[in-house]
Amino acid sequence: MPLSPKVPTPTLERLATYYTILSDLKSRQADTISSADIEERTGINAAQFRKDLSYFGEFGRPGVGYAIDELHARIGRILKLEKTQPVILVGAGNLGSALVGYPALRADNFRIVAAFDNNYNKIGKQLWDLTIRDITRLVEDNATLGARLAIIAVPVGAAQDVAERLVEAGIKNILNFAPVVLRLPRDVIVRNVDFVQELAVLSFHLPDPTTNP
Amino acid sequence: MPLSPKVPTPTLERLATYYTILSDLKSRQADTISSADIEERTGINAAQFRKDLSYFGEFGRPGVGYAIDELHARIGRILKLEKTQPVILVGAGNLGSALVGYPALRADNFRIVAAFDNNYNKIGKQLWDLTIRDITRLVEDNATLGARLAIIAVPVGAAQDVAERLVEAGIKNILNFAPVVLRLPRDVIVRNVDFVQELAVLSFHLPDPTTNP
Repeated sequence: MPLSPKVPTPTLERLATYYTILSDLKSRQADTISSADIEERTGINAAQFRKDLSYFGEFGRPGVGYAIDELHARIGRILKLEKTQPVILVGAGNLGSALVGYPALRADNFRIVAAFDNNYNKIGKQLWDLTIRDITRLVEDNATLGARLAIIAVPVGAAQDVAERLVEAGIKNILNFAPVVLRLPRDVIVRNVDFVQELAVLSFHLPDPTTNP
Repeated sequence: MPLSPKVPTPTLERLATYYTILSDLKSRQADTISSADIEERTGINAAQFRKDLSYFGEFGRPGVGYAIDELHARIGRILKLEKTQPVILVGAGNLGSALVGYPALRADNFRIVAAFDNNYNKIGKQLWDLTIRDITRLVEDNATLGARLAIIAVPVGAAQDVAERLVEAGIKNILNFAPVVLRLPRDVIVRNVDFVQELAVLSFHLPDPTTNP
């Protein structure tokens, strides 16, 4: 593994947010942006923005701000978004279908190149423009596909097995939608998206039902 | 607004994870759990687990551990998961459909009680067991529905308008799937789920393509 700077995960999450904003501005032909504009658009304060960038060298010019094209390209390189990244999807259910059809993924250079499932009623059928593949062929198929990112969108009970197959297929960077904690070798990076967890955090912040609203 | 303890968001996220684990253990008739077991199952270290609980008083007994039923019930009360929470969905597209059909939401007491859209080809049609409603009737309909949580699953261009309508309908706790930063009054709590951001963070951690894998 190459040495990469030790960058906090929240910084990476914010970089992705800046990238989204910059993509939008770029499409509207804007030239420069200040850290105050970034704060205005994202709610992330200007000092934090400058600190996030500081992990990666010098950016922008005092009094001038940041050239949008350049900043967009540099963050794109940092996050490895300049070239299309092939992504494997496992789980051709409702969520998997929504992900394959999700327009923003393609816009940002992630392309789901193959969808796998273990259900013989689904294997061979179409999921948008993909033919659903047999999960038992994952290792073999990825030797050709060469994906290094994968999305798990299977029920809880199947997620651990799927994750192990992905690792076996050489995929160590996994986005997991199953609400379960995967147990994998230490060098595998998993990001969990748990809808229930998100709602639970919001629910905590609801006013107490015993008080008048 | 009632006073609530100032609890860090990562603590709330972890509480939701503990809750998921405890629900699972409870359904398997387990009695007690130690903080070391929690670490083993979640990867969250035992000291962090105890610190997370410490925001909410005394839990567990030294040498005995935590009674699963009690811990589950208390975390459920903290996150307001004991009673069914009605949730409004805006956006009856692929992602919205996947969310309505998502089994874990219902299991954890979140119930999507209404789905709204602005597309006249969708309004009046079925989305699972829901009849898709007209977004222009949101304020009026929620006077009856009484939801205080909502999910935005609309395209980027519509998200800000939808969010403002939700606030007008009295909903101040929003889970937003549109990859855009919403500008809303300060008392509105938004959680953003951005699939591209998640993949971008994973992408950052991929080995450099210029080195041999």
